[in-house]
Amino acid sequence: MITSTGNERIRHAAALSAKARLRREERLFVAEGERFFMDTPEASVREIFYTEEFLARAEDRVREKLSACADRAEAVTRQVMEKAASTVTPQGILCVLSQPAYEMEELLTKNAPAGGGREGGAPPLLLLLENIQDPGNLGTLFRTAEAAGVSGIVLSRGCTDLFGPKAVRSTMSAILRVPFLYAEDFPAAAVQLQGRGVELYAAHLNGSADYDAEDYTAPCGFMIGNEGSGLTREAAELAGKKIRIPMEGGIESLNAAMAGGILLYEAYRQRRKAEFL
Amino acid sequence: MITSTGNERIRHAAALSAKARLRREERLFVAEGERFFMDTPEASVREIFYTEEFLARAEDRVREKLSACADRAEAVTRQVMEKAASTVTPQGILCVLSQPAYEMEELLTKNAPAGGGREGGAPPLLLLLENIQDPGNLGTLFRTAEAAGVSGIVLSRGCTDLFGPKAVRSTMSAILRVPFLYAEDFPAAAVQLQGRGVELYAAHLNGSADYDAEDYTAPCGFMIGNEGSGLTREAAELAGKKIRIPMEGGIESLNAAMAGGILLYEAYRQRRKAEFL
Repeated sequence: MITSTGNERIRHAAALSAKARLRREERLFVAEGERFFMDTPEASVREIFYTEEFLARAEDRVREKLSACADRAEAVTRQVMEKAASTVTPQGILCVLSQPAYEMEELLTKNAPAGGGREGGAPPLLLLLENIQDPGNLGTLFRTAEAAGVSGIVLSRGCTDLFGPKAVRSTMSAILRVPFLYAEDFPAAAVQLQGRGVELYAAHLNGSADYDAEDYTAPCGFMIGNEGSGLTREAAELAGKKIRIPMEGGIESLNAAMAGGILLYEAYRQRRKAEFL
Repeated sequence: MITSTGNERIRHAAALSAKARLRREERLFVAEGERFFMDTPEASVREIFYTEEFLARAEDRVREKLSACADRAEAVTRQVMEKAASTVTPQGILCVLSQPAYEMEELLTKNAPAGGGREGGAPPLLLLLENIQDPGNLGTLFRTAEAAGVSGIVLSRGCTDLFGPKAVRSTMSAILRVPFLYAEDFPAAAVQLQGRGVELYAAHLNGSADYDAEDYTAPCGFMIGNEGSGLTREAAELAGKKIRIPMEGGIESLNAAMAGGILLYEAYRQRRKAEFL
């Protein structure tokens, strides 16, 4: 049992939560809570810290997984957990995980959803995020994207770090399941997808078409830009079409995560109606 | 010009940002930034504080409104603004505003949207929020609701204070335009709306119908519950129908604001298609 907040491994976990650069160098990140622990494949779990209170009230399936990972699991005091965790009221379990890494091909070849659907699953549905700054928005976009059946997410280098504690938490563990990659050259990644037959739609306040007048049942992707300034001109010009989400009243724009969710759920609605899903 | 952070009016403004109880007692709230200042009807503005830097770079229309409110406007130093404001980098203008107050009837009788629509506007579209805890979610729901053409919002007393600084900011000034009220008795308010012909749909993980299989072109309202626990059983049982937002993958639920936005935009889509809007 680790009882000292000065413990080397605890300080390392806390540093991983605090420092994007360390996360990038070591290709690790920290995730708190039972959901993350249970949803992470064992092979990706590097270290586990848990409190005795957590163990005492854990369900059997949680205890079983802890036993299976016993070589990497360590009990800590509540005080030590507070030092390691980035939340004010830690959930009692914290994992150091390997960052998932994907190739572009994996963003296009989604497994058929559980419960059937067409042979080979639905056509690719992508999300391309440029310079999303708010970790909560980024995480929420991942969470919503998984729910809407997205096959993959491309992030520009200007997006905030998905592996930061707030973004990780906001994904509700979708970060473990949705294939994604940070594109060094965002426009080039968009062109690469177009070369693979993916129709790109740019969410744009001056879009020429209402978002719900388009057909999203073929392979397609939505490009969403920065919270304040939207997509860069270069990125928006690449898209085959600029689409607009209509708005009543005095609102100038929707929250970026909300806009993404509305677009994705319209695509998902159309695809379910077409019985792809 | 106010130069002291100890100034009585500045301390009052800071206290209004910090204390829900004071806001409630005095029926006031604080809003920062040019958007709020410009969007607020003059009659609702109690006090205005601005920095000389703000004035120096203000557009003519902003200066004109400041002149019109000169009896309530006061220049302050940057340091004083930082004391009064709740943000780290204040925008240079801060207003103390009267809390808007509405009767239930006003939530049902939306003005016809600018630019036309049917005689008398679209049928009422309501949002009923029970125990929403996160100020960002609450504000985002207001922002999205206005954009989707909602006629009014009912909040349970268990919702976080809409007049807190983060919620206010997240509304993007929709708080000034969307009629709303805090219902002392949330279920009774729901029943009252039903008595006025409003069909209520409860967003529910165990809903019997997919949300997009329903018709929302008649007067209707969506009930959205707490981020963690959803709607209370009592509230959910009141609704004519429990609806479900389908989800792929391993996601257990959507963010509450996201769920609300997806439902509202489906209603708005149907209503635009039916040419009500």
